[in-house]
Amino acid sequence: MLPPVLPPVSDADASPAVAAIYADIRATRGGDFINLFWRVLANDPALLKRTWEDLKAVMGPGTIDPLTKELVYIAVSVTNGCTYCINSHTAAARAKGMTDAMLMELQAIVGMANETNRLVTGLQVPVDPEFLSDRS
Amino acid sequence: MLPPVLPPVSDADASPAVAAIYADIRATRGGDFINLFWRVLANDPALLKRTWEDLKAVMGPGTIDPLTKELVYIAVSVTNGCTYCINSHTAAARAKGMTDAMLMELQAIVGMANETNRLVTGLQVPVDPEFLSDRS
Amino acid sequence: MLPPVLPPVSDADASPAVAAIYADIRATRGGDFINLFWRVLANDPALLKRTWEDLKAVMGPGTIDPLTKELVYIAVSVTNGCTYCINSHTAAARAKGMTDAMLMELQAIVGMANETNRLVTGLQVPVDPEFLSDRS
Amino acid sequence: MLPPVLPPVSDADASPAVAAIYADIRATRGGDFINLFWRVLANDPALLKRTWEDLKAVMGPGTIDPLTKELVYIAVSVTNGCTYCINSHTAAARAKGMTDAMLMELQAIVGMANETNRLVTGLQVPVDPEFLSDRS
Amino acid sequence: MLPPVLPPVSDADASPAVAAIYADIRATRGGDFINLFWRVLANDPALLKRTWEDLKAVMGPGTIDPLTKELVYIAVSVTNGCTYCINSHTAAARAKGMTDAMLMELQAIVGMANETNRLVTGLQVPVDPEFLSDRS
Amino acid sequence: MLPPVLPPVSDADASPAVAAIYADIRATRGGDFINLFWRVLANDPALLKRTWEDLKAVMGPGTIDPLTKELVYIAVSVTNGCTYCINSHTAAARAKGMTDAMLMELQAIVGMANETNRLVTGLQVPVDPEFLSDRS
Repeated sequence: MLPPVLPPVSDADASPAVAAIYADIRATRGGDFINLFWRVLANDPALLKRTWEDLKAVMGPGTIDPLTKELVYIAVSVTNGCTYCINSHTAAARAKGMTDAMLMELQAIVGMANETNRLVTGLQVPVDPEFLSDRS
Repeated sequence: MLPPVLPPVSDADASPAVAAIYADIRATRGGDFINLFWRVLANDPALLKRTWEDLKAVMGPGTIDPLTKELVYIAVSVTNGCTYCINSHTAAARAKGMTDAMLMELQAIVGMANETNRLVTGLQVPVDPEFLSDRS
Repeated sequence: MLPPVLPPVSDADASPAVAAIYADIRATRGGDFINLFWRVLANDPALLKRTWEDLKAVMGPGTIDPLTKELVYIAVSVTNGCTYCINSHTAAARAKGMTDAMLMELQAIVGMANETNRLVTGLQVPVDPEFLSDRS
Repeated sequence: MLPPVLPPVSDADASPAVAAIYADIRATRGGDFINLFWRVLANDPALLKRTWEDLKAVMGPGTIDPLTKELVYIAVSVTNGCTYCINSHTAAARAKGMTDAMLMELQAIVGMANETNRLVTGLQVPVDPEFLSDRS
Repeated sequence: MLPPVLPPVSDADASPAVAAIYADIRATRGGDFINLFWRVLANDPALLKRTWEDLKAVMGPGTIDPLTKELVYIAVSVTNGCTYCINSHTAAARAKGMTDAMLMELQAIVGMANETNRLVTGLQVPVDPEFLSDRS
Repeated sequence: MLPPVLPPVSDADASPAVAAIYADIRATRGGDFINLFWRVLANDPALLKRTWEDLKAVMGPGTIDPLTKELVYIAVSVTNGCTYCINSHTAAARAKGMTDAMLMELQAIVGMANETNRLVTGLQVPVDPEFLSDRS
């Protein structure tokens, strides 16, 4: 694999602002490992902080359960063709209980959605008014 | 809205092969309404049959619950920018219990996933070996 | 539909440089109609000229027949979700002989390709060495 | 290259359901080689069966010739950035007669279509009514 | 145009949390107008707050000038085919000094980049080591 | 990395038409290095010539400064997930003065644009009439 466009920031090289985020990542996740996404993002401490805090909020407690959130994340990453994201969120989903059967079923849904998205688009199907009936 | 590239097939114009699929859609969904996607697809009865049967299998009983499947479908459709699909699957998800709060939370996840997909790609972050540790 | 970001350039308002391209479009296509894509592009005469001459070269005589070229153009436009392009190239393909059956078969291929593209990506399937055997 | 998210299923490990599809792939293609896409998909025998049978139908005899179908498949795969699919379908197209000249001409069309798709979108060009004149 | 999936939140219906963001948007932009993006996002006050504060930080003072930031935003929006975003950021770029000539030149760059992106991908060109020479 | 679908054309193998373009690339850039994109494209001399001359015109002097053009090119390449293009244009932007701080700020804008593009699309926000007020 190619090197990233800027080098990852090690613990030794972390400024106090970066070190504080690294500490929060470790505390939130309950482990020492900090993946390369955060270490490369650390070249811009403000972007690191904003992205981590947003992700923590978005993937944290809410009305959608944590495993479903990971499945949605994988679905987007597959559709965008983001190799890193597919691998990192597939690992995260497994850690939250995704079985092999669920993994394969997810791929089937994502594949099917991409297929019907294009059929609809290619045929230029207009939106049925019935789909909008519950809107104000 | 623009008309579709081929006209929708009405019940009156349906060949026996198309009528059989229309009947199965109605039986499976427990209602009379057949949306335009199927009616336009009916210009190719074999494609209609294959797509409907695949969708019934993929979205039917499995290891992922029906509402989660709709959320995944919406996530893909938003990422692909498919207006028809967003509207049809948002209606379907609502019918299966998606609340306004869940809808908004889903958008937040999809938005965030698209953002981090691009950050990872733009920075060319290599995949951490730790993500692959459970693979044979 | 919304208006374009810059107004179309009418024949009356065309500069000599634009008028020359309009004339070549008419001569090449054997008809008076100039579609809005060219008229809006005419706000930048150099871009109009470059795009028209490139398109004429790319879609002109070569080793791939004219109708196949249109099918490829539609496939890309559907995958990118470009409504204007789908409608313009579907009309062009029909003018070159695409039947309703071919149109539907094309949609099936495009849908299927989008589905398997995502299955391959989601499962992170590595490229078989056999596919590269004919490369120097 | 990274390993796939689930391991490929070897002939020795294939269940009867998977073995039957492998046999059909070999019979249909007239060769022993089964590429990794099918072997990884075999982790879900129902998805393997559905995808293979759909692909066989879509890429089989119809109104569009087999080589043109491969060119369309490549065009979609390039637009989606699917490395595996580009390599597998480029090999398939060559086996069906695509010359180097045709390969390069295809790239030119795909590149041009992507360019004009974005020009149209960026300029927000509305669809000419003339393109819709043949629709009911 | 179709209605949004949830209704825009008017000033009269805004909760204190939403009203505070609306006030900050007005103060930051120096005008009364609040566009529909924020009003629909307001159905989730936390998402509204996060998105607005991120956007204010990202598009605010930095090492890239404000007009260049808008040009980048348009380039992404065109590539993603986001109609709303193209129209809103084209208006914003004009307000910051984008001339008609710059607008057309931007489209040419975006079109060209999309073309060469696909040529590179379709031809599977490997990255030259020279491009990586400045990386640690 | 995988080999390209057709081999790069060396100086020794270049036809006069290809050699002329290679010479112009060297003269325009003021250096001997010719990157693999051009060498693979050289398998189709007419496509090589057209693409090089278009790129020279689009990225040459105009109303948008050269570094901004590179930033726009990177933004498109990231959104399309084109690894080669990200690496080549990141190198080009650095050569034209992009600092590490600008690089990170660019990523933040691209990430944010991708996020809001999807929020707008997922929520199906209609275009505000105010954005169109300056159009004829």
